Amino acid sequence: MLPLLTRIDHVGIACRDLDRAIEVYRATFGLEVVSTEVNEAQGVREAMLQVVAGTAGAGGSYVQLLEPLAADTPVGKFLARRGEGIHHVGYGVADIGEALSAIGATGVRLIDERPRHGSLGASIAFLHPADLGGVLTELVQFVTLT
Amino acid sequence: MLPLLTRIDHVGIACRDLDRAIEVYRATFGLEVVSTEVNEAQGVREAMLQVVAGTAGAGGSYVQLLEPLAADTPVGKFLARRGEGIHHVGYGVADIGEALSAIGATGVRLIDERPRHGSLGASIAFLHPADLGGVLTELVQFVTLT
Repeated sequence: MLPLLTRIDHVGIACRDLDRAIEVYRATFGLEVVSTEVNEAQGVREAMLQVVAGTAGAGGSYVQLLEPLAADTPVGKFLARRGEGIHHVGYGVADIGEALSAIGATGVRLIDERPRHGSLGASIAFLHPADLGGVLTELVQFVTLT
Repeated sequence: MLPLLTRIDHVGIACRDLDRAIEVYRATFGLEVVSTEVNEAQGVREAMLQVVAGTAGAGGSYVQLLEPLAADTPVGKFLARRGEGIHHVGYGVADIGEALSAIGATGVRLIDERPRHGSLGASIAFLHPADLGGVLTELVQFVTLT
């Protein structure tokens, strides 16, 4: 079996105040925001801070800061239950469709049977934490900007 | 201010049964173990699974699986409080001594004032989660093998 994962794409961190969290990461580590967006489907306002720059052929590595849009969103419920902290990890894959097929065949449950739109224009899908030792795991296929 | 972080070195995942967790990551993603060790000082038995290979000049990226040696260790207490899941994140730095000085000067509390021995022979130090939005954060300086 070939390794499916090409990199650690990002660590997703739940926070109560996005602007304040951005300032902490900028002041502490010198990380800069490369993208902010509101994702209504996921119920978050988010920022991507670059750790490693992406290239034309490959995605980079990021800290993703996530502020819930409301208390009854997944990230809102996470904050109420566990407080601020690491929410999920995202790994790069070369072909997300192939990766979902291969992983689904092992018996790990797919939260997203088909890829959907993620940060920075990527194609993403989540895997069920109950089958991965409590870790909410995201697959990310970098989409080359043309 | 220059960015201090050179990569996402690893995601540290707390588990109850290391052998079983290794098998899950191998079966699901094809990840292979490159190192296992017992770290008595941290109270863990751990495995590093390679996502991106290190080179002569730079460290790689890993999934780090952590099983506590006893219930009254930091990872043992984490499991009792929160269950299995992501325990911390480790970022690569070029010079850990300089990074600790720079970060300490911003007011973020250092769990380790001086670097200590970590996985794969690296030099590591932890930063206090209370000053980083609930995220236990590790710095990792890759040590070139000679």
